[in-house]
Parts: sequence; structure tokens; C-alpha cells
Amino acid sequence: MQLALEWAAKGLYTTSPNPRIGCVIVKDGLVVGAGVTQPAGQAHAEVQALRDAAARGHDVRGATAYVTLEPCNHHGRTPPCSDALVRAGLGRVVAAMTDPNPLVAGQGLAKLEAAGIAVSTGLLAEQAYELNIGFFSRMRRGRPWVRLKTAASLDGMTALHNGSSQWITGPQARADGHAWRARTCAILTGIGTVKADDPQLTVRAVDTPRQPRRIVVDSRLDIDPAARVLDGGGTWIVAATANPEKEAQLRAAGAEVIMLPNAAGKVDLPQLMLELGRRQINELHVEAGAKLNGSLIREGCVDELLVYLAPALIGDGQGMFALPALSDLTHKQHLKFHEVKQIGEDLRILARFNPL
Amino acid sequence: MQLALEWAAKGLYTTSPNPRIGCVIVKDGLVVGAGVTQPAGQAHAEVQALRDAAARGHDVRGATAYVTLEPCNHHGRTPPCSDALVRAGLGRVVAAMTDPNPLVAGQGLAKLEAAGIAVSTGLLAEQAYELNIGFFSRMRRGRPWVRLKTAASLDGMTALHNGSSQWITGPQARADGHAWRARTCAILTGIGTVKADDPQLTVRAVDTPRQPRRIVVDSRLDIDPAARVLDGGGTWIVAATANPEKEAQLRAAGAEVIMLPNAAGKVDLPQLMLELGRRQINELHVEAGAKLNGSLIREGCVDELLVYLAPALIGDGQGMFALPALSDLTHKQHLKFHEVKQIGEDLRILARFNPL
Repeated sequence: MQLALEWAAKGLYTTSPNPRIGCVIVKDGLVVGAGVTQPAGQAHAEVQALRDAAARGHDVRGATAYVTLEPCNHHGRTPPCSDALVRAGLGRVVAAMTDPNPLVAGQGLAKLEAAGIAVSTGLLAEQAYELNIGFFSRMRRGRPWVRLKTAASLDGMTALHNGSSQWITGPQARADGHAWRARTCAILTGIGTVKADDPQLTVRAVDTPRQPRRIVVDSRLDIDPAARVLDGGGTWIVAATANPEKEAQLRAAGAEVIMLPNAAGKVDLPQLMLELGRRQINELHVEAGAKLNGSLIREGCVDELLVYLAPALIGDGQGMFALPALSDLTHKQHLKFHEVKQIGEDLRILARFNPL
Repeated sequence: MQLALEWAAKGLYTTSPNPRIGCVIVKDGLVVGAGVTQPAGQAHAEVQALRDAAARGHDVRGATAYVTLEPCNHHGRTPPCSDALVRAGLGRVVAAMTDPNPLVAGQGLAKLEAAGIAVSTGLLAEQAYELNIGFFSRMRRGRPWVRLKTAASLDGMTALHNGSSQWITGPQARADGHAWRARTCAILTGIGTVKADDPQLTVRAVDTPRQPRRIVVDSRLDIDPAARVLDGGGTWIVAATANPEKEAQLRAAGAEVIMLPNAAGKVDLPQLMLELGRRQINELHVEAGAKLNGSLIREGCVDELLVYLAPALIGDGQGMFALPALSDLTHKQHLKFHEVKQIGEDLRILARFNPL
């Protein structure tokens, strides 16, 4: 299963909106085939592993398949993997977890069992879950797993008062940040960051065959149609105030405008998360300023903080999150440290609000 | 030597102002004696180990002594350890480091060598150094190793605007903080913290036979003679403005007043560090508010930050260090992460400014 997880990880930048699945087929103690889910519409991991075994001339009858998620049992863009495994005559299937997709949800394993194949689940389930945390979030809650990235000094500052933030963290941390961008379905920022920094919001520091969708929260459609975040098209602009002329300009620049006003005339952030779930966004990566960061946290839209902490003190400057002053410490927002790692000279801290 | 370091660590709360030294005597592959430096004026580790071997009936002639610091060669409150080792007929002495004390500085090893004992140094030197970092600082620079402790939320806040800070971190982190207090020679705070919290500044959460000295920076002698930090006597009040009447009150409360004004009429903090070195303070533990913290950092008086980071967000509140806003990020204060550890639910981060 460890090897199957390694195969699954090969799909980190490519399988979305499908989960990253790895499959390893073992016969008589030897690995005879392995595979990873191909980009959407192409073969799933199980079929890839069966093809690999066939190409290498192995007979898989009676073999055991280790797969990081329950084989699918529905006709999506590809036929059910459960059928392929039954046809191939596998003797046993070990799945790390059952599929949270309501179209599968145990039926894949049930079909295998009905065909006389021994099945079991639970092996290395936690690692399998982490690899597809966004897919699980979308299937179980209808919204993406939202990871908010920020880089700050040890005294909690993300920039000077003059806006200068290049660079607080080192080159290794910045490259690591691009790897986190690469695995997500979409990167979200706010109009404040677009105006201040004119970012591209693309993955550059690591190789990836696929760029994540870019999303800008821009209540009043203030974005400049020449902003770099629109380069190449496909960007979603989320607004709250209609402006037909500006919308037409943005459409001409290849962007899509999504109107999601709340009662206060701002973008309805919780509704946006549900809309992104409907649009098959599994993991959402937020890189925004303190104001949008604070709004997303206050409105319960953030699942995880990805904080790069530099071994430096900046003093008076811009904080990470614009959150109102509390009158009582019992009202603080609780998280749980999930992982801490040194990246170059900096620390990378993953902290979670609400474990699923 | 690892065992000698474990013996040395037994002296963490007791040997000051002497260094914590461990000694293990090995003969024919067996440990025949071990010891740790006793409180000042009593036996050093080498003599303790020789006594231990004698009490257990072992002949140490020709044996090897592993000692975490070069044996002393001067008459202080006890006779030289080098003489004791020579008299005992040791065959070999392995010291982790040479003694930085100018009264020793290699002469202890030289005397051993002159007496025909084989000597070597450098084994596990880094661990030996860390155990006595304050003693090395005082011997090499004439001032203590200054460790500034703070507890903050992940967004860098130490308290609400209303001053509330109980509790940001959890009970394990608070107990761990007391263990760091216990190993230091003195705990320093500012008049702002004394007025706001009326702390005792004693070690309570861990057992210790010795309480560190308490020091309050109080430029204008504003301290209430009934403040709890004066309880039990021995507290040093560092001031910049004379006030004979108040000084007399404080002396009556068992405190000592130290006048150290700078040109601006404030306490001269760098001079204070030298004064504390003269007063044999090896490690100084700072627990103060943002203002004194910021002053100490700006004036280059802090060697290490001990930051407990809670998995919580507080929002707008009081920061860790009052440092002025920068105009350019290249002027940020650089540190180096030395150690990161999870303590209960919190993170403990040790970051250093200037490795010695």
C-alpha cells in the first residue's frame, strides 16, 4: 500500500477533479503491475495497473490489488474499475479507504465481493485521506478544502506598512509555496492583492503540466482588464455588483464573471465555497491580503493555514489576518498544529481549524 | 561522554554560578565512578566521581575520566580538580571542551599532560556547550546569555488590547516555561509587567532547590514596595532616577537598588548586561512586555527568543515586541531557528540572534 500511495502521489498535479489514486498488483510476493489515475477522462489507476501487468506479460489471475481508494463502480467518463478487476480475475483487493463519492460509497467493494473477490479496507487510510483531502471535502461537504497560505516574520508581520513584502521568507520556502499551488484546483486572491502586486498567480517554481484555475474576489469589479492574473484566460472574477460594460470587457479578456452578492453587497464567501464545490474544485489555495484572509476566516471558509515563518523580526507592520479585537480570550479561534517542518531557513507550519 | 553529559544535566538547577559539569570514570570498560558539580563552594564533578569510585571500592589508577569541561586548575572556593586527578593516578582524561574561564583556559589540561596523563578534547562539545551556554557567555563576553521568553497566538499576539493574556498557551507550555526559569540565574521583567500582572516571578511548576534572582527594570522607581516580586527579598531593582526615600523603602523590603542611567535618563540596558555579568549571572531569562522586549532587542541585549506559539488566532491585540516600523525589509532583524518542538498543543520555538 505504501508503494500504491507513492504511485498515487505521481498524480498530485494532474488528476483533478478526480482523486489521486495509485494501484499496485502483487502476485506471489512480486509487484507485477502498477499505475496512477490519468488526467480526467482517461484511465483510472486500476486499469493502468492491469495494462502495465499485461504489457509485462504477467497473468494477474488470483493476484492482490492494493489501491488507495475503493475502485469505482459507476460509468463516468470511463467504465467502472470494479468490472475491470472482476474480469481480470483478481483474487483479493485491499483498498485504503472507501470512496466518499455517493455514486460509489461501498458499492465498488460490494460488487467485487459479490464476484468472489476478498476485499478489505483501512490500510494506511490516513495517508490516503491526506492525499485526496480536497476530493473528500467536496464529496462530503460540497465545498473545497481551503488552504490559506501566508508568509510572515516570527513577530507575525507579512509586510511593512509601505506594502513591501519581498522577501520575508527565503527562496526554498517560496519554491515550496509553488508546489502547494501546483497541487490545488484553484488559487484565490482578492482585488487588493491584484491592485498592489499585480500577481500572475501561476505555478512557476515547479514543473507542472496543468496550471490551477485563478479566482479573484472583486466585489465591485474594480479589476484592470490588463491585470496579469487575466493573462491566458480562464480566470474567474467573483463580484457582488453588476457592471455590464466591465463584465463584457472581462469576458473579452477570457475571464468569467460570477455574481454572488450577500445582503451587505459584498461577495457571499460561504456561497462561493459551495459554488466552487459545484464547479469541481477539490483543493482551494488562498493567497490574499490581511483583509480577505480575515473575512474568509471569520466566515468559517478556511480549513487549514499554511504559514511560512521566517527567522526575522520586522516590528510594526501589516499583520496576517484582519480580525476584530476580542474582549475575551475564550473567543479566540482554535486550531491544531498538523505539521511543522523547516524549509531552508524558514519554518512551514500547517494548522487546521476543523478536521473533517 | 554521553553519560557524563547526563550527570552534568543533574546540576541544571543547582550549580550556578559554576558551570554544570559531569564526570564519569571508566576502567576496563566499566563505569567505576560518576559525579556532578555540587552547589557553589562544594565539590566539583571530578572530585565527586573520585569519591564515588572510592566509596564503591574501585582502584582508579590508570582509568579514564570523561568530563564535560576541562578540569579546573585554580584555587577558587575548592582546590584544583587537576591536582585531584593527578593524585588519583588517572591514565587518561577526555574533556568535551576546554574551560573558557581565563583562570583555567587550557592550563588544567596542561597540568594533567605534564603529569603524564593522556588528554583529549572535543568529544560531544556542542552538547557540553549548550548545557553551559550562559557560563560560556559570561566568560567570553562578560555578560549573560539572554533568553527572552514570550507566548503568542499563531497570528503573533501576546494579549488582547485589554491586557488579558490568561491563557494563550496550554498548561504543558506554561510548565515548560517554569523549567526554563529554573535553569537560569535570574529572571528579568519590567515595571509595566509588575504593575499590570503583579507576578511573583518564581519557579513553581517544577521542583527546584534554588529560586533564580529576580530583577525589575524600573527607571523611575515606580514599583509598589508591596509588589509580589519583592516577596522573600533579594530582588534587584534597576533604576535611572534617584529617589532616596523610595530606595530606603525598597531596601527595607529586602531589595537592592542598582542605578544605571543612560544619557536619555532611562536604564542603560547594555551596561546592565555587563553589570549582571560582573554579578555572576550566567543565563538571564526575560519575561517582560512588548516595550521592554523591544528595547532589549533594539539595543542588542537579547541572544535567543523562546517563543511558545499557540494554535489560535486572536486578531487585533498586543504584539510581541515594540519595534519601530521599517522603511526597508533589508533592515529586518535576522535570527536562526535553533530548535522547534511541540509542547502539549503548542509549539516551542528557539531562535537565536548571534551565535557566540
